[in-house]
Amino acid sequence: MKIFLFLFVTLLATCHGDVVSHEHGSTNKIFPLRIKTGPGGHYIPEVSCSSWRLGVETHNVINWKTVPLECETYVGNYMLGDQYRADSKTVNREGYYYAKTLNISGDGKDIWVFDIDETSLSNLPYYAKHGFGVNPYNDTSFNEWVDLGKAPALPESQKLYKKLLSLGVKIVFLTGRPLKQTDITAKNLKLAGYHTWEKLILKDLSIYHGKTAVTYKSSERKKLEKEGYRIIGNVGDQWSDILGTNTGDRTFKLPDPIYYIA
Amino acid sequence: MKIFLFLFVTLLATCHGDVVSHEHGSTNKIFPLRIKTGPGGHYIPEVSCSSWRLGVETHNVINWKTVPLECETYVGNYMLGDQYRADSKTVNREGYYYAKTLNISGDGKDIWVFDIDETSLSNLPYYAKHGFGVNPYNDTSFNEWVDLGKAPALPESQKLYKKLLSLGVKIVFLTGRPLKQTDITAKNLKLAGYHTWEKLILKDLSIYHGKTAVTYKSSERKKLEKEGYRIIGNVGDQWSDILGTNTGDRTFKLPDPIYYIA
Repeated sequence: MKIFLFLFVTLLATCHGDVVSHEHGSTNKIFPLRIKTGPGGHYIPEVSCSSWRLGVETHNVINWKTVPLECETYVGNYMLGDQYRADSKTVNREGYYYAKTLNISGDGKDIWVFDIDETSLSNLPYYAKHGFGVNPYNDTSFNEWVDLGKAPALPESQKLYKKLLSLGVKIVFLTGRPLKQTDITAKNLKLAGYHTWEKLILKDLSIYHGKTAVTYKSSERKKLEKEGYRIIGNVGDQWSDILGTNTGDRTFKLPDPIYYIA
Repeated sequence: MKIFLFLFVTLLATCHGDVVSHEHGSTNKIFPLRIKTGPGGHYIPEVSCSSWRLGVETHNVINWKTVPLECETYVGNYMLGDQYRADSKTVNREGYYYAKTLNISGDGKDIWVFDIDETSLSNLPYYAKHGFGVNPYNDTSFNEWVDLGKAPALPESQKLYKKLLSLGVKIVFLTGRPLKQTDITAKNLKLAGYHTWEKLILKDLSIYHGKTAVTYKSSERKKLEKEGYRIIGNVGDQWSDILGTNTGDRTFKLPDPIYYIA
């Protein structure tokens, strides 16, 4: 009996979020996620962190530096659970449904632009050990991870990749990774099952140092179009992958509640 | 003991969605929401409808006609529960945080464009009686509801509206409602607590009949800018409110999983 009571209460807490409520003022700036959800002003992490995540994914919440501390568990559960996978599947599937409706010319000029990190390859093994985006970005430790070349594929993105290839679409990888990571990135892509591409474009810091991702990626996409390529699709986990100019005929935003790149 | 076991199992089912699983093929087109979440291919409405909703809000899922039948309960619970309110609050609060950083000139030319339906006023009383978007749009019954002039305010949007006014920002309502609904719309806005505005723009069908919302709204925003207004913000529940041209300095997308307007 006791164990069932315990399990019941635990499950109730898990299901409805932290049952401990906090009083707060509606204009409280220190805990901007604390939402009044009822007369008592209950703070429910599941509800407010879900709102924060939706705000991030819809580009309402922008220029954020780290995941709110109180959302670490929420984001961790999201990334490791079914929902992240399902959300990724929905986006990539829409990509395929769209691609199927097109007449692919067969001249090799129809391309689909894929971002790499959190789009083609997953850095979840890294972020799972580093607070799921709660900790400030650490260039040194992140690059040590990248240099291992062991990031796994995002399976739903890889399905889209393979289906696009079978439709005759060429793949262009366009990433904010610096040029010096070209070899390890190519190796990692192949190891993860991305065996072919038309181009693999990394960030040339001699041109783009200090420039935003929007500027860099827009400029590189413009070059692609000048070379005669038609960008029929463009997929990334950051809004900076799909905003700006020369964005392609249709863009797809994959989920990423871990970090924000302007 | 038995009652706890029952409660436990019930809660488990509620928490993790329908525990009944359906086998399906991965290319099944009839049930496009059915997601393989494990080796057995379990279909979990909570997970897949949540993915669908995220896909809609992020503009990955577009041009949809009705809410998927299997998501009626999910969408109904969402709209009537804490999450819709919290999600709306997050968006409007970001709007206010942004507006506060601006220098409002005081010349009366800084405007914020508000859409009306599901942005300023809520049609939830109507949709709660009509399947939460599962039923195809019914022009007759919807307009009967509009003509009552009793749509309540969306409280979080109204907070933004009031805060913007206090900052010296002028409000322009820009809606797809037809011109003939001008009087009832003005009356409804006032009844709901929106007492003042710079302009209330409804769709002139002699100009825009058959045109998309993106075209109509872009064109009207362009006119505003030609009149010397600066659109410092623009908020709507549809992507067609904030895409196109002359979109404003920053746009905000409110949640709406009930209907899609191109």
